[in-house]
Amino acid sequence: MNKLEKYFPARVWLKSYSRNDLKTDAVASFIATILLIPQSMGYAMLAGLPAVTGLYASILPAIAYSLFGSSRTLAVGPAAITSMMTATIALPFALPESQDYAMVAILLALLSGMFLMLMGLFKMGFLSNLLSHPVISGFISASAILIALGQFKHLLGIEAHGNNFLELTQSMIRNLHQTNLPTVILSLVSITFLLLLKKYLTTLLIALKLPLNLCQLFGKAGPVLVVATTTSCVAIFSLDELGIRIVGNVSESLPKLNLTGIDFDTVTALLPGAFLISIVGFVSSVSVAQSFAAKRKEDLNPNQELVGLGMANLTAALSFSFPVTGGFSRSVINVSAGSRTPMAGILTGLLMLLTLLFLTPLFYYLPTAVLASSITVAILQLIDVKDAIRLYRFSKQEAISLAVTFFVVLFIGMEAGIVVGVALSLLFFLWHTSHPHIAVVGRLPGTENFRNVKRFDVETNPEIVTIRIDENLFFANARVLEDYVLTLVSQHREMKHLVLMCNAVNLIDASALDSLETIDDRLKSAGVILHFSEIKGPVMDKLTDSSLIKNLRGKVFLTQHQAMKALTKQQTDE
Amino acid sequence: MNKLEKYFPARVWLKSYSRNDLKTDAVASFIATILLIPQSMGYAMLAGLPAVTGLYASILPAIAYSLFGSSRTLAVGPAAITSMMTATIALPFALPESQDYAMVAILLALLSGMFLMLMGLFKMGFLSNLLSHPVISGFISASAILIALGQFKHLLGIEAHGNNFLELTQSMIRNLHQTNLPTVILSLVSITFLLLLKKYLTTLLIALKLPLNLCQLFGKAGPVLVVATTTSCVAIFSLDELGIRIVGNVSESLPKLNLTGIDFDTVTALLPGAFLISIVGFVSSVSVAQSFAAKRKEDLNPNQELVGLGMANLTAALSFSFPVTGGFSRSVINVSAGSRTPMAGILTGLLMLLTLLFLTPLFYYLPTAVLASSITVAILQLIDVKDAIRLYRFSKQEAISLAVTFFVVLFIGMEAGIVVGVALSLLFFLWHTSHPHIAVVGRLPGTENFRNVKRFDVETNPEIVTIRIDENLFFANARVLEDYVLTLVSQHREMKHLVLMCNAVNLIDASALDSLETIDDRLKSAGVILHFSEIKGPVMDKLTDSSLIKNLRGKVFLTQHQAMKALTKQQTDE
Repeated sequence: MNKLEKYFPARVWLKSYSRNDLKTDAVASFIATILLIPQSMGYAMLAGLPAVTGLYASILPAIAYSLFGSSRTLAVGPAAITSMMTATIALPFALPESQDYAMVAILLALLSGMFLMLMGLFKMGFLSNLLSHPVISGFISASAILIALGQFKHLLGIEAHGNNFLELTQSMIRNLHQTNLPTVILSLVSITFLLLLKKYLTTLLIALKLPLNLCQLFGKAGPVLVVATTTSCVAIFSLDELGIRIVGNVSESLPKLNLTGIDFDTVTALLPGAFLISIVGFVSSVSVAQSFAAKRKEDLNPNQELVGLGMANLTAALSFSFPVTGGFSRSVINVSAGSRTPMAGILTGLLMLLTLLFLTPLFYYLPTAVLASSITVAILQLIDVKDAIRLYRFSKQEAISLAVTFFVVLFIGMEAGIVVGVALSLLFFLWHTSHPHIAVVGRLPGTENFRNVKRFDVETNPEIVTIRIDENLFFANARVLEDYVLTLVSQHREMKHLVLMCNAVNLIDASALDSLETIDDRLKSAGVILHFSEIKGPVMDKLTDSSLIKNLRGKVFLTQHQAMKALTKQQTDE
Repeated sequence: MNKLEKYFPARVWLKSYSRNDLKTDAVASFIATILLIPQSMGYAMLAGLPAVTGLYASILPAIAYSLFGSSRTLAVGPAAITSMMTATIALPFALPESQDYAMVAILLALLSGMFLMLMGLFKMGFLSNLLSHPVISGFISASAILIALGQFKHLLGIEAHGNNFLELTQSMIRNLHQTNLPTVILSLVSITFLLLLKKYLTTLLIALKLPLNLCQLFGKAGPVLVVATTTSCVAIFSLDELGIRIVGNVSESLPKLNLTGIDFDTVTALLPGAFLISIVGFVSSVSVAQSFAAKRKEDLNPNQELVGLGMANLTAALSFSFPVTGGFSRSVINVSAGSRTPMAGILTGLLMLLTLLFLTPLFYYLPTAVLASSITVAILQLIDVKDAIRLYRFSKQEAISLAVTFFVVLFIGMEAGIVVGVALSLLFFLWHTSHPHIAVVGRLPGTENFRNVKRFDVETNPEIVTIRIDENLFFANARVLEDYVLTLVSQHREMKHLVLMCNAVNLIDASALDSLETIDDRLKSAGVILHFSEIKGPVMDKLTDSSLIKNLRGKVFLTQHQAMKALTKQQTDE
């Protein structure tokens, strides 16, 4: 891979791109565009922005990712989780659908694009690993509830704003009197049809004897059908006059660049939120990309993914929209439509542009309640109770992390939830490693195997004691070993030699080295000689020059068997 | 150990306490009290409080720790690090030596006592492990510089306040014109004598043919001699009239309980600082206690230590003083004076009480510049440049943690320094574990040993690939394994079986389990069967009921050798 390919991965697939590929990709992108239009508009609304900005966010970002991303199938654009995060983070700064609010959303896209690029350039992608399974699971379930709740106002046709469960419900209850009956009816009808189509459309198409792959693809066309039908109904019967809200005139709702509302303080205040959007967006995007790459036995480069997503968000800011990421449903549509290369993403972007330029009048009568219905139906399946139960059975501690994240996100806020969840995960992990499994071992008679004295009937020697440490030695447990050895010495008063068996130690850091030196010192004053056995190669490389090994009175043995042979011999010689 | 002994460890040594023990402890405590008086007063001044509060902090806390702590030799009272932290944390809330300031110090003692008790009751002592070697080293060196700098105003006889290096130096330069020449001369003389006595007093005593242990003990009497001499000089020649500040009338400087200045907001604002004092105090205290316990082959119970230090701080608050902890120099004095049991600590406390009641007139003419000199001389030896150099050679990353902690403490503040240092340590550790060593292994010909294909000339099989993971599998590296396997599959297109060899895996958490299921799913769609070998007992116990093992198409082999034998046989059979 040469340097250009490294920074511009599109070169790889462009080299062998054929006219035949183009044909397939063109058809795929045409189908995908139709299916993605209502989704993109829905997510824009979810983000608290005019529905049409969803189309903006589907043009340049899709093209930028196709050029700079490393996945061949991932489709990038507005996604549920990033839109929801945009809404909750932007809310304290401006009223939704105001010009200031649009500017905040643009800023969030700009900042998270910058974070992603920086993480990519400095290869900091591993930061996303901080989001453990329980934190992600709790976060997504709670967010799904908040998203669904946030759509409820559209389903009823009322106003409501809030950052968490209580604020949202209170605001909704206060405004319940605004409820518009025609909107409620329309919502109920839409939801019913969406659920029915979701369940039976594929089966129906199969019964119609269409090819299986087309059935699976058009099985996802439920929202398109419902949107088309309801929009036509509203247009024909002028239902908007009954108080049903519609998308309306697109050009009127375009965000205008208004830099006066933006100051340095706002930017600083947005930084943590933008960072969280980047991290969460990156994690969800990479997991989607990985699942598709695996199916095709393709490779994926997480740091290049950061650059790809970073460029997508920077261009999202340039097109006056909001943060985007690689979406699951988006990518499924892309793949089932038959896309072969990232060219499909580029073509989808271009078709979205044409839609925006020429087809927006078609969406004039599209009712927002219908978009909200489709989001609600899609989002509720993200609530994963089974996972919580499974986790509870597997590990009580991790179940606590999930529960705490869930409730903090729901009742306090998304940012607090993630921070608290990550802190808890780290704390539990540190708790685990700071209670390492340490075993006194003895020789299985007649073998070279050394096993835990508590589990096996082994030979021991009161003067030569061996302990095996089943954990990395680093700052979180370094002092635990000191305590352990201290107790051990007070219990084995005949001890003359102590051997530390290090076959499961993959890391010794400076704190642990410090503790080992302290242990050696203390053993010295207690008249015990410290030895090591089975230190791994890479660990030994680091230790060789340390004062621990230089000042060690004991020896470093390659194997535990050699250690016991040498020390027992020495004992008999004395 | 019965329940009462568990909560009241003094019972153990009290049971066998003899008249002879009492005699030895009484002599030891008498000597220790004399040596500790100037030290305690100096640390009180360091905390920004009237020197006499140092005596208060040496009575009840010493007695409380002796009754509730688990170490037999640790001496608890005012210590350099906790006094310094008290000063910087209290400064933003009130002016030093004011009544409000004294109340803040009392509150800090109360809160950190509560934190220590809570950590003890909930066995949260492992939290202190977060302070890694580089963070402690950087923190102590920077604090020592700040402490010495803070004493400089006393040495010059000027006013100066500040939380960090810049604030302190600026404030000092502004007030430099107040410099009092007699004070400067006194400081220089004191420092010179302190340094000379420190270096030559023991030698001198040895030359006088005193018993060696007495020489070592009285070799530490330098500060006492200098304090006695200078106090006498000031009294005789009325040097205080030249502008040299003296301790003055003790009863005038007693803190009075003034609850009006304290509100809920102040308490909340003090919580993080109090928590840091608890943690840092606990860490330094335990490391001192451990080093003495090891020499005597005694055991130490960290959770009981939390209770002991907690009680010491609660009683410090009750006696209107400031946070205390187990001090190194204090304990050395205690041990060299010949103390046998914690009774010596109780007696020292009582003697301090007598000193406070009857001997304070002796300290009337004690110059604060002399106390400041003794603190400066004692503290500067804590700056450890050698350690920084050694650390830099051992690990660049950890050297960065040290440097960042050092500079943040020096130029921003102690709390920020610790928080940033801990965060960096965690980040580097996570970086390390999220880049685990994973090796493709093959069989050493003719053996049952499987080794890295890159290091050894081993037998491999293109259809059966084995990888060995040299790290715990948890959230920080779970997805790394996904990436690794993805790349592996794209590189080994003939692969039909993948064996994960888990002999160095001590932990698999829910995130890792999740990743392993994802890996199994992806391998399934790539036509590869996943197997495991050499999973450790405790890890397997947790996995048995998981859906990963239930849905696994491959097998879990006890040893890697069995895995290869079975899979190769299956391959030949086909």
